[in-house]
Amino acid sequence: MPARKIRNLYLYPSEKYTMGKLAQEFNEYRGKMNEVILGQQNKVINRLFNLDTNTYAEGALPVKTKELLGLVASMVLRCDDCIRYHLGKCHEAGVTTEELYEVFAVANIVGGTIVIPHTRRAAEYWEDLQQD
Amino acid sequence: MPARKIRNLYLYPSEKYTMGKLAQEFNEYRGKMNEVILGQQNKVINRLFNLDTNTYAEGALPVKTKELLGLVASMVLRCDDCIRYHLGKCHEAGVTTEELYEVFAVANIVGGTIVIPHTRRAAEYWEDLQQD
Amino acid sequence: MPARKIRNLYLYPSEKYTMGKLAQEFNEYRGKMNEVILGQQNKVINRLFNLDTNTYAEGALPVKTKELLGLVASMVLRCDDCIRYHLGKCHEAGVTTEELYEVFAVANIVGGTIVIPHTRRAAEYWEDLQQD
Amino acid sequence: MPARKIRNLYLYPSEKYTMGKLAQEFNEYRGKMNEVILGQQNKVINRLFNLDTNTYAEGALPVKTKELLGLVASMVLRCDDCIRYHLGKCHEAGVTTEELYEVFAVANIVGGTIVIPHTRRAAEYWEDLQQD
Amino acid sequence: MPARKIRNLYLYPSEKYTMGKLAQEFNEYRGKMNEVILGQQNKVINRLFNLDTNTYAEGALPVKTKELLGLVASMVLRCDDCIRYHLGKCHEAGVTTEELYEVFAVANIVGGTIVIPHTRRAAEYWEDLQQD
Amino acid sequence: MPARKIRNLYLYPSEKYTMGKLAQEFNEYRGKMNEVILGQQNKVINRLFNLDTNTYAEGALPVKTKELLGLVASMVLRCDDCIRYHLGKCHEAGVTTEELYEVFAVANIVGGTIVIPHTRRAAEYWEDLQQD
Repeated sequence: MPARKIRNLYLYPSEKYTMGKLAQEFNEYRGKMNEVILGQQNKVINRLFNLDTNTYAEGALPVKTKELLGLVASMVLRCDDCIRYHLGKCHEAGVTTEELYEVFAVANIVGGTIVIPHTRRAAEYWEDLQQD
Repeated sequence: MPARKIRNLYLYPSEKYTMGKLAQEFNEYRGKMNEVILGQQNKVINRLFNLDTNTYAEGALPVKTKELLGLVASMVLRCDDCIRYHLGKCHEAGVTTEELYEVFAVANIVGGTIVIPHTRRAAEYWEDLQQD
Repeated sequence: MPARKIRNLYLYPSEKYTMGKLAQEFNEYRGKMNEVILGQQNKVINRLFNLDTNTYAEGALPVKTKELLGLVASMVLRCDDCIRYHLGKCHEAGVTTEELYEVFAVANIVGGTIVIPHTRRAAEYWEDLQQD
Repeated sequence: MPARKIRNLYLYPSEKYTMGKLAQEFNEYRGKMNEVILGQQNKVINRLFNLDTNTYAEGALPVKTKELLGLVASMVLRCDDCIRYHLGKCHEAGVTTEELYEVFAVANIVGGTIVIPHTRRAAEYWEDLQQD
Repeated sequence: MPARKIRNLYLYPSEKYTMGKLAQEFNEYRGKMNEVILGQQNKVINRLFNLDTNTYAEGALPVKTKELLGLVASMVLRCDDCIRYHLGKCHEAGVTTEELYEVFAVANIVGGTIVIPHTRRAAEYWEDLQQD
Repeated sequence: MPARKIRNLYLYPSEKYTMGKLAQEFNEYRGKMNEVILGQQNKVINRLFNLDTNTYAEGALPVKTKELLGLVASMVLRCDDCIRYHLGKCHEAGVTTEELYEVFAVANIVGGTIVIPHTRRAAEYWEDLQQD
């Protein structure tokens, strides 16, 4: 499985958006390290990366709903990088700020105030994504 | 804040559905223990229960999407009772089995195979909910 | 390190309390399985069990405060058996129901509504403990 | 992807072992519900189940080591069913009780005393597996 | 609900303490991002922030005990920002270093050695808070 | 219990390896803060640190296997510092890159894609460790 093909699916279409500084740094680091990981040719890891991409494809549920699902799951599990990834995808899918904060509300109610610090960084990243 | 008023919001409208055995037992235990907890009149807990109900109300996002969000959050946090609660609500909101399994897919990919045993019990409960 | 000595520290003083049915079953299972585990003479595990007992001994903080700390930690980590153990200890330490629900409030706010099902079972166990 | 083929990989070779009662019940429920889940033909879920099986196949690391890795991961994440699955596989791979308790030690030190209740149930299941 | 009123409750009374550098940076970022979040007027989030403040108010348990509860919950859930927040509040409530380390002990025993890196950062922040 | 004696067991033998920049910074911070923590003479914490060292000593399982167990546990619990510590130990124990990625595979399958960002940082640290 060629590393390049998977990696491309993984990066945001940077041609389409002039992202803010946070988003650019995040994407560069992720792209670089995904290349290192996928280059090791561990079949299980490479297939999981591939499967991850398929999970959010259009299906019975639209892409936008799936990205909201990925976002809320990342928030309650409190993974800042995963939150950033899905915020980028939500931005591409046209999620509004009001809709986004309703996802933040579900995450903070289900996951508790322990999610608040991640919500702060998510709010900051979301503002960064608007700078295009 | 009267315990009764909150509790009613919390139970499934059992008049509407003839639920299966699992769902009935679950609802009875939850109703009984919510009454015990809310009866203690701890202001923070009673307000949190109330807020929990508001979280899933129609807003910028429809009720159905919010219930899917609650479900996926409950799955990756691996809480069987929370999963059951949201499965019941998803059933009421008209979620199809195909849509449901796409939520299961997101939960299992984000949360890993550690979510599989909870997915088994969720699949069983979903079948139970269809028995009406 | 003799298994018996540690185990005794671990069980509630059943001579002192006539516990309810839930508490009795819980203590019997725990006592029996602790004996199996400690009997294997794994030095790390046996020392950890011993250290666990020391953690809640009177120190700069009183026993009651330490048991409340153990309880809230068990609740946000959502371990029903650990919750039961500390509820038993809180009962022995003279914690009132009003104090207990303030701990429940902290646990549910910090840990989110995912803690509610564990709070239900904790409330049930607390009622069971009063039956003496 | 035929559900049957994956499911067979998933069950213990019951021809080989006369398992105890706990293990038999666990395997029956898992087998039945895996059939329900895989029968829904959600591509992401079915591929993840398949990938899960590949993860523990002989590679640079032997099967036995991989099963110990799966076990310790399941213990610190505190999933009783996952623990049971890997205990069954460890039993098949010839893990000794002394080795097993060293895995229990790592899990309890890294994951804390919150892992103890799961260790009790693991110790019980391990004894159940010896009954052949 | 005016954002300003909640935010003020949330910041440390900087008039009262000359905090160290870490604490100042932390408070500035939190204050700024809380303003962004609360400014979105999502009713659920704003009420949760408000409820969070009420949780630690004097009640059947004293403020100091409640802050110790908030601290130990934050430690076992391994949230550095939440730990910092409660360390600041514990400092205000007059918690001694010896008492604090007994809370650290409970957190590390219950939560395991996975809590150690957070304990290191907590110890550093606690030293930073003494610089007034 | 003298703080110095435990601390030495804790640091990598820096005489033996010319580590990369990430590893040096990590070890310095850890050494400095462990000294602060152990210097407080909290008996429970100091014994836990000591016990932690014993957990990974040669036993029925070899040191290398135990370090792989510590690594996978740290990965699924998503603690970057714990991952770094065990990567350093794995490097000392002669773990190959191919073996390491099989541990990464188990961690990512069991723990889900939420583990991917930690795998990126682990892959970066592993490359850093090779620079000697």
